[in-house]
Amino acid sequence: MTQILPLHSTRALKIDSDEPSPSAALSRAESLDDVPQVTRQLADLLARTAVDRDKAGGHAATERELIRQSGLLALTIPTRWGGLGGDWPTFYKVVRELARADAALAHVFAFHHLQVASVLLYGDVEQQERLLTQTIKKRWFWGNALNPLDKRTLALATSGGFRIRGTKNFCSGSVGSDMMTFSAWHEPSSSALIAVVPTKGPGVDVRSDWDAFGQRQTDSGTVNFHDVHVSRADVLQAPGLTPSPHTSLRTLVSQLILTNLYLGVGEGAFAAALRYTKEEARPWLTANVQRAHEDPYTQHRYGEFRVALRAAQAVADDAARTLQAALDQGPALDAVARGDTALAVSEAKVLAHRAGLEVSSQFLELTGARSTGGRYGFDRFWRNVRVHTLHDPVDYKLRDLGRHAITGQYPEASAYT
Amino acid sequence: MTQILPLHSTRALKIDSDEPSPSAALSRAESLDDVPQVTRQLADLLARTAVDRDKAGGHAATERELIRQSGLLALTIPTRWGGLGGDWPTFYKVVRELARADAALAHVFAFHHLQVASVLLYGDVEQQERLLTQTIKKRWFWGNALNPLDKRTLALATSGGFRIRGTKNFCSGSVGSDMMTFSAWHEPSSSALIAVVPTKGPGVDVRSDWDAFGQRQTDSGTVNFHDVHVSRADVLQAPGLTPSPHTSLRTLVSQLILTNLYLGVGEGAFAAALRYTKEEARPWLTANVQRAHEDPYTQHRYGEFRVALRAAQAVADDAARTLQAALDQGPALDAVARGDTALAVSEAKVLAHRAGLEVSSQFLELTGARSTGGRYGFDRFWRNVRVHTLHDPVDYKLRDLGRHAITGQYPEASAYT
Amino acid sequence: MTQILPLHSTRALKIDSDEPSPSAALSRAESLDDVPQVTRQLADLLARTAVDRDKAGGHAATERELIRQSGLLALTIPTRWGGLGGDWPTFYKVVRELARADAALAHVFAFHHLQVASVLLYGDVEQQERLLTQTIKKRWFWGNALNPLDKRTLALATSGGFRIRGTKNFCSGSVGSDMMTFSAWHEPSSSALIAVVPTKGPGVDVRSDWDAFGQRQTDSGTVNFHDVHVSRADVLQAPGLTPSPHTSLRTLVSQLILTNLYLGVGEGAFAAALRYTKEEARPWLTANVQRAHEDPYTQHRYGEFRVALRAAQAVADDAARTLQAALDQGPALDAVARGDTALAVSEAKVLAHRAGLEVSSQFLELTGARSTGGRYGFDRFWRNVRVHTLHDPVDYKLRDLGRHAITGQYPEASAYT
Amino acid sequence: MTQILPLHSTRALKIDSDEPSPSAALSRAESLDDVPQVTRQLADLLARTAVDRDKAGGHAATERELIRQSGLLALTIPTRWGGLGGDWPTFYKVVRELARADAALAHVFAFHHLQVASVLLYGDVEQQERLLTQTIKKRWFWGNALNPLDKRTLALATSGGFRIRGTKNFCSGSVGSDMMTFSAWHEPSSSALIAVVPTKGPGVDVRSDWDAFGQRQTDSGTVNFHDVHVSRADVLQAPGLTPSPHTSLRTLVSQLILTNLYLGVGEGAFAAALRYTKEEARPWLTANVQRAHEDPYTQHRYGEFRVALRAAQAVADDAARTLQAALDQGPALDAVARGDTALAVSEAKVLAHRAGLEVSSQFLELTGARSTGGRYGFDRFWRNVRVHTLHDPVDYKLRDLGRHAITGQYPEASAYT
Repeated sequence: MTQILPLHSTRALKIDSDEPSPSAALSRAESLDDVPQVTRQLADLLARTAVDRDKAGGHAATERELIRQSGLLALTIPTRWGGLGGDWPTFYKVVRELARADAALAHVFAFHHLQVASVLLYGDVEQQERLLTQTIKKRWFWGNALNPLDKRTLALATSGGFRIRGTKNFCSGSVGSDMMTFSAWHEPSSSALIAVVPTKGPGVDVRSDWDAFGQRQTDSGTVNFHDVHVSRADVLQAPGLTPSPHTSLRTLVSQLILTNLYLGVGEGAFAAALRYTKEEARPWLTANVQRAHEDPYTQHRYGEFRVALRAAQAVADDAARTLQAALDQGPALDAVARGDTALAVSEAKVLAHRAGLEVSSQFLELTGARSTGGRYGFDRFWRNVRVHTLHDPVDYKLRDLGRHAITGQYPEASAYT
Repeated sequence: MTQILPLHSTRALKIDSDEPSPSAALSRAESLDDVPQVTRQLADLLARTAVDRDKAGGHAATERELIRQSGLLALTIPTRWGGLGGDWPTFYKVVRELARADAALAHVFAFHHLQVASVLLYGDVEQQERLLTQTIKKRWFWGNALNPLDKRTLALATSGGFRIRGTKNFCSGSVGSDMMTFSAWHEPSSSALIAVVPTKGPGVDVRSDWDAFGQRQTDSGTVNFHDVHVSRADVLQAPGLTPSPHTSLRTLVSQLILTNLYLGVGEGAFAAALRYTKEEARPWLTANVQRAHEDPYTQHRYGEFRVALRAAQAVADDAARTLQAALDQGPALDAVARGDTALAVSEAKVLAHRAGLEVSSQFLELTGARSTGGRYGFDRFWRNVRVHTLHDPVDYKLRDLGRHAITGQYPEASAYT
Repeated sequence: MTQILPLHSTRALKIDSDEPSPSAALSRAESLDDVPQVTRQLADLLARTAVDRDKAGGHAATERELIRQSGLLALTIPTRWGGLGGDWPTFYKVVRELARADAALAHVFAFHHLQVASVLLYGDVEQQERLLTQTIKKRWFWGNALNPLDKRTLALATSGGFRIRGTKNFCSGSVGSDMMTFSAWHEPSSSALIAVVPTKGPGVDVRSDWDAFGQRQTDSGTVNFHDVHVSRADVLQAPGLTPSPHTSLRTLVSQLILTNLYLGVGEGAFAAALRYTKEEARPWLTANVQRAHEDPYTQHRYGEFRVALRAAQAVADDAARTLQAALDQGPALDAVARGDTALAVSEAKVLAHRAGLEVSSQFLELTGARSTGGRYGFDRFWRNVRVHTLHDPVDYKLRDLGRHAITGQYPEASAYT
Repeated sequence: MTQILPLHSTRALKIDSDEPSPSAALSRAESLDDVPQVTRQLADLLARTAVDRDKAGGHAATERELIRQSGLLALTIPTRWGGLGGDWPTFYKVVRELARADAALAHVFAFHHLQVASVLLYGDVEQQERLLTQTIKKRWFWGNALNPLDKRTLALATSGGFRIRGTKNFCSGSVGSDMMTFSAWHEPSSSALIAVVPTKGPGVDVRSDWDAFGQRQTDSGTVNFHDVHVSRADVLQAPGLTPSPHTSLRTLVSQLILTNLYLGVGEGAFAAALRYTKEEARPWLTANVQRAHEDPYTQHRYGEFRVALRAAQAVADDAARTLQAALDQGPALDAVARGDTALAVSEAKVLAHRAGLEVSSQFLELTGARSTGGRYGFDRFWRNVRVHTLHDPVDYKLRDLGRHAITGQYPEASAYT
């Protein structure tokens, strides 16, 4: 899988995931060997309609079905439970490639796998087996209602488990999902419970009310729990438990998803710009060149974009390897190794944040006034990455990195670091 | 008028043009003394509906009527022909303030005055008197069909004038205007004619087909000329005439409009961010502050935005004074003074381009995820300034400035410099 | 005076103060009319030896004598006391032009005038008259021992005044001066006294121990006071007095000196680069141009430098006008007007800080490897501006500016704001 | 070796190569296992005197002898000829670590190995064996006289070889070396010969005339050849031969040396800043923190430096692996693989150029005015990296990268790409 689009290879520069081939078809990934080709096919299919769907917003039922058909929902599920057994570096490359074509659907795809990771990290073996074999068997698509900043959802202990009531917002992937992980605040222990629930189960009400100006099809609705019963068997993390370094890796899996989404958007904008420059752009009046791409400033700016993306890619790929190594340690992972992993992910996230934003906004200087026409949808790159990069503030990532450099203090494990 | 919103004054920091007062009313500017208050009122009224109208796109008939009622269409028309006789530095401050509230309508407003400038620069005294007194009397709103890169509109000499046929695109302000300036290519002389035409005159067909992702209500349609007859009296510049340094100031009037629009958008984003920070923002989890605005990184970023805007303002204001001085020289203006004016405008344009883009994209890091909700319309700042800054490439402005620094060579007078 | 080197005028681009004319002579400024020419002559003379003196470090006795001969030490002294009566905007332009040639001597020159300002702001009319008429008559060169962060110098009340003992470091201009202002800590009142003392008076010991890597000839030595007697007549500000908005303008006079020094260094580097590009640079191998200055990237970078310098100039010039207006209000100045002036100066300082650093470090990308040879002394620009910009942290200027934008809070008057 | 100082590991943040331990001793590297420890020891020893030697300039005979004693001159020499057989990624990490302590001596060290690479790339097996076994046996230190832009040295064919006459400048490592590679222009074939010559051989005259403001002890003198006889056996590349993709990798070995030197300087400045912040810095007056390192802006800036360095490290390490793979292909290497390697190196060089310059200039904002004192030598980081980054223009690296992204065109193999 490492051969997917290293930006400095020959192939890299044919980043063309937004140029769907005329006869795009979708295979099903039956093994890891199939993943690169199926990813490409899926990206091509998403790209075909991405501009129109961005305008429409709402739920992309057809495209979520395509994702399901691709078999890639099994990517990170271990082979013993019927999955493809892909490692996380592989997963992140798939996320990045899908995000080039459609950052919203790539997010929905990636957050399915974040919930798989949640089951793997928080769940016991019985839960892993039960939930993940069923994920394969029943072709479940996972969403989440885990927003930790929103404590309006409460967990009340009952004889057999918990009763859940209240509201969660920013629930990515919730609309149209089959299963969700969620968190609920347990007041007696002043801590959160984490559990799973069928999206269409009794008392669960998912509203499609996400109306941000970007990432418009992430299905990030509001979930209302009306006295939903959750049995102990479905509780992944009981209230009162302190997260271990191992379980707290969930945050880093998530943060590195964001990182690769930002990067994918930047790469998508880069690819869109390249195609436009080659096919449609005209040289500037006073440039004294025959073709737009011979313009020295155009070449230079592409060089700048490439270097910015390349830096983010290299650090993101390193971070994915570091994260995989941390995951591989299992519950033995100590706080120092967890901290180093968090810092590696933070470095990558800062770089991807900036590269994504810069390329998405600046590439239009190369494509020009005519490329702002609605049919190109060229503003979607900036809108998507701008909305997505507001998940948590980049200044605090930089603060954490600098503080650690001086004092050795690691950022506290949280829902953001 | 210089008291309008210097950013470092106390009042400046109450930039609140997007906070319409509940009882906004609109006076009519009867003299220059009224201009600041009427500008503020008009900006308030435009701000009330700016987010919704940006979403709707299309023609803003009601708001154009408000502009007409404000009396500000007379701003730059000399008093001898019934106008308010405002100078250009005053005009640019009005443009900037309107752009804070609504960059599209500010553009329509500004381009009306660009056509007034065209009549003043190209027209003889008879034309100036006739066209400008009628502008006052009949409350004309001017648009344009002058896009010089589009040579598809041809001028064919006839006994009494010219017959015009062909198409022009990117015709800002054309939809819904009363009068237009336009250019047409005269093949025998390999040069352009510039003339005026009633928008609703026979053979003139304006299509509302502008669909860029920003500046959505600039009425920048396509104009088709179907054998339109233009009499000699309506020709401002006959084919075959070499533009003088004086007449070529039209480009600089236009470039400085763009400059102040970019700056106004940046100031508008700054004001929107300030209000959100003060009223709605929450402190970050690990910031250890009670209120969002006490966050040291938030304060620092506002400092950065302020400095970027302040630099662009200072240089734009200097350039406006330089341009006024050049205009005041009339036809005596020589190429060197024209060249220095062009460079002063270019310096301002580069700074405003960057300040506008930077603030419009970055302010969201201060307002955060919640502020991306559709009701705020916070993406419109970036979309507006991004589309508008693609008028001509900033790299060539920098090239011109640097080349002149080394060699003393002035940029050639053109439709862009 | 406003004609001195506006960077966008024709003349501006002949910034050539480091190209001394072969027959440089030095007139004496007898009136304000002479100031531009004498400034230019003085700058030329300083430039002749600036590279060698930077290498040597230490005290520039000969050049300080040239400054004295120029008559420019009288520039800001009011005419009623025999001075030239120049306003502060004029003074800052002189500082900037001298700094292009030699930032260290420009600093010594400027700090003389800062002490003149101190006498004007803190002194009563008797003191102003006595000290300033003598400054003219005896051709005094003022230095300072006012570093407010260093509280090791104590003032002990005596019957006729104070006894001063202790040490001050960072005393710019002290070495070789005739008179100094100084501050001393008065413990009973927990406040500082400000007074004047003859540099060669009894008990005053100035050590030439400044060894920073830049601004090497600023004579910023350590001053030791060995029970120096200071009479009440020489105390400009007695202990226990709260500085008024008016007297606290001294800090802003000083901060704007720093601003113009940074800017002068940037302009000097720009001028040095231009000359090298025109006279010595060779085109790069793969540039496909005949002469170095035709390189599109070279032109673009000069454009960047120009815009950065231009922005800083415009805002610095605005700030000088704002400061002059504040000074003109005299003791009636209120805290709001003082605060606005402080913010205007801070905006200018941030821009000059960055423009100075950027141009001083980046211009070498245009002049290339060969220009690093010792005879050019091209590193002195960066070394000078780097050392000088560390006077107080730019991040806190940005914090102050941003905090004010949000809350309206002015920075507290201090030795730095 | 990969464990040497990954910046995000715990150990990384103890970058302390400029903090020599009190009892620094120097072992001799007898195997690759010894390399990390010996490198650290050597760096410590160089750091002890780096500030003083930078001031003195000239030839560092004692320190070159230390390098010789370390055994690290054998690092890249294959084991079959008695060397340590280190791969190039290992070598670059050593270069980077030495550059943290002393960028000039690191350059001298690295250029020795560049000449080893030249023998390996250009020489036949007999030459490799003869020259490299003698390098081990006689403890040769190699320098070079290969500056390809200087064609003043001519090669005239003789019966047994060539007669060499003329001059070469910028000959890094020449002063005090034992052997040199050099190039000479052969007019009949309009091409260059590359050969080796003993530095103290008859007719070879090396002048220590390097006087740039940085990298002062790189021994980059001028070499004069006075009819020096070179036998055919010592000619590595005869005139008239077209360099193959394989031999042209020499340029990339060299460019990646520069890259790692820039990066090492940046890391050295980072380490120096950290130490100063922890041990000597004082909090700013208005910062409201107890210790300098608690300042939020200080932490944030360290975060910025860390991210900039980290990006450059990751891409440089990737490039080193890519280069090693290209070298491993031997003469079979094709132009595409060579081109991709060149682009990977260019990406790394641009990032290291910028990170090195930025950190070297900006870290002083954290250490402050007091840290500009001569004893710290804190300007040497900027001076070193500023001089070294002028080897070839970064704008053309960006141009090459951008042009390739658009057109697929590889940069032509040359002495710079």
